[in-house]
Amino acid sequence: MHSIKVKSPATLSNLCCGFDILGMALNEPYDIIELIKKEESGILIKHKDSYQLPADPKVNISGVALQAMMDSLNYEQGFELVIDKKIKPGSGIGSSAASAAGVVVAANELLGKPFNKKQLISFAMEGEVLASGSRHADNLAPCIYGGLVLIRDTPSMDIIFLNIPPLFITIIHPQIEIKTSYAREILPKEISLKNAVTQWANVAGLVSGFMKNDYELIQRSLQDVIVEPVRSKLIPGFDDAKCKCLDAGALGGGISGSGPSLFMLSETEAIARLVENEMKSVYNQIGIDYKTYVTTVANNGVELIK
Amino acid sequence: MHSIKVKSPATLSNLCCGFDILGMALNEPYDIIELIKKEESGILIKHKDSYQLPADPKVNISGVALQAMMDSLNYEQGFELVIDKKIKPGSGIGSSAASAAGVVVAANELLGKPFNKKQLISFAMEGEVLASGSRHADNLAPCIYGGLVLIRDTPSMDIIFLNIPPLFITIIHPQIEIKTSYAREILPKEISLKNAVTQWANVAGLVSGFMKNDYELIQRSLQDVIVEPVRSKLIPGFDDAKCKCLDAGALGGGISGSGPSLFMLSETEAIARLVENEMKSVYNQIGIDYKTYVTTVANNGVELIK
Repeated sequence: MHSIKVKSPATLSNLCCGFDILGMALNEPYDIIELIKKEESGILIKHKDSYQLPADPKVNISGVALQAMMDSLNYEQGFELVIDKKIKPGSGIGSSAASAAGVVVAANELLGKPFNKKQLISFAMEGEVLASGSRHADNLAPCIYGGLVLIRDTPSMDIIFLNIPPLFITIIHPQIEIKTSYAREILPKEISLKNAVTQWANVAGLVSGFMKNDYELIQRSLQDVIVEPVRSKLIPGFDDAKCKCLDAGALGGGISGSGPSLFMLSETEAIARLVENEMKSVYNQIGIDYKTYVTTVANNGVELIK
Repeated sequence: MHSIKVKSPATLSNLCCGFDILGMALNEPYDIIELIKKEESGILIKHKDSYQLPADPKVNISGVALQAMMDSLNYEQGFELVIDKKIKPGSGIGSSAASAAGVVVAANELLGKPFNKKQLISFAMEGEVLASGSRHADNLAPCIYGGLVLIRDTPSMDIIFLNIPPLFITIIHPQIEIKTSYAREILPKEISLKNAVTQWANVAGLVSGFMKNDYELIQRSLQDVIVEPVRSKLIPGFDDAKCKCLDAGALGGGISGSGPSLFMLSETEAIARLVENEMKSVYNQIGIDYKTYVTTVANNGVELIK
């Protein structure tokens, strides 16, 4: 095989009470990444989108992730990489993870699958380090595994695939900028034991609700008493939007990643569409541009395009 | 029906990372409670054991729980209560919960089942308040439901039954006294967000490990980075015993309730017996008397004895 094309999905991370540990792959939006073997060494990057991301592989997320894999193989030849990014950088729905995961899955296919999924995540993580300075896998793991995944422990790459019932996800990306570093900085270093217990009770409820296909339990458990109260202040319209989405029948939701996107989970597409309308009306009123998606859970992660 | 006899099981609460939210019912030990209707009003308590617990129903855990139920029914007649306590008070394996839960389940049967399990827990909780001053259901809920239960939220009594694979539980009760109030007092009011995330990642791993019948995941997740490091200092021999039990093949374990009992979960009875021997050898060496149990999960809670 000489070339390959993959679609690399957007992902929700920091799933409410599951801050830092639960991530979910989405069917929409996704990046398209084409990888072509070339005889000469080095990585050549071409962009088909208009995001003006760097073409220098040393400072490009996909480039860094791919190079990490090539280094581990002492791979002498090179690759041409054509990126058509549809997940807007800085949206909070795993744009950098899609860039990093897509390219390593594609390269692994082209090279005859020398690596397993955990190894692929560790190469892709080099891209995440470039993007945010931190080694986290809560977007990468769902991007590569698909579905809902628990990252129990990042250093040992303990990743658990969790079965879930059908869900519809509504996302609104208000066109404002939140720096991931700032969103990290404002997190409390210390929290009360009381709130922590509330949070892990909800985590336990959410995980068991997903695994039991119990929508009501999912709904009761979709609460974040630690991070959302702090970070939601960075997102104009958050409280109003959340309140209206819940009134419209959403199971629950919150901030995707470190924002600014909001997500809501719903049991039916009809509710997810109502939720989308509520989100739109709030941001129309505030006068902030936005983009919305109504999508489902991507059961596979990065996928080959025939 | 004029009289009834029930067995009311011991329970593990504060299941490692599941501090305050996960509890498990055990087949051994258990209390035996006999309840007899009488024409005259009031509660008459007789003890068959040697623990010298109060016979005055106003300061007896079973008495207070039963009275709460009788009050809610405006019940005019009375009961005689014969308690044969096998779960030593202050052991940390739910002795007070067994007293409170057993009597309300028994009375509910005698009176034609006017109440559901959640209502029974709320009556029994009056007994727990008398015992420890706090409204908690993490022993009561497994005592009444059986099996492993998640108490997601105590005020709304959101209790979730979780399926688990076969488990063998080894318990050692070193004959020392730890006051529940002191064990609560030494808990940190504030904890680091980092440790909290580690804890809820383990909670998610433990719940999914139980529900997937994945013993290795259960083993990796049975870690408590918040409470055990503080409370284990109150229990001589804890670190040594835990270390030797893990070496003997236990999946993991920790402090039951607020101590002083230690528990370990194992995949087979053979391992649970090895674990028991390790526990005994540690406390023989220290020279502290003890009592041990090797038991399994009680799938039913309080049960009628024919």
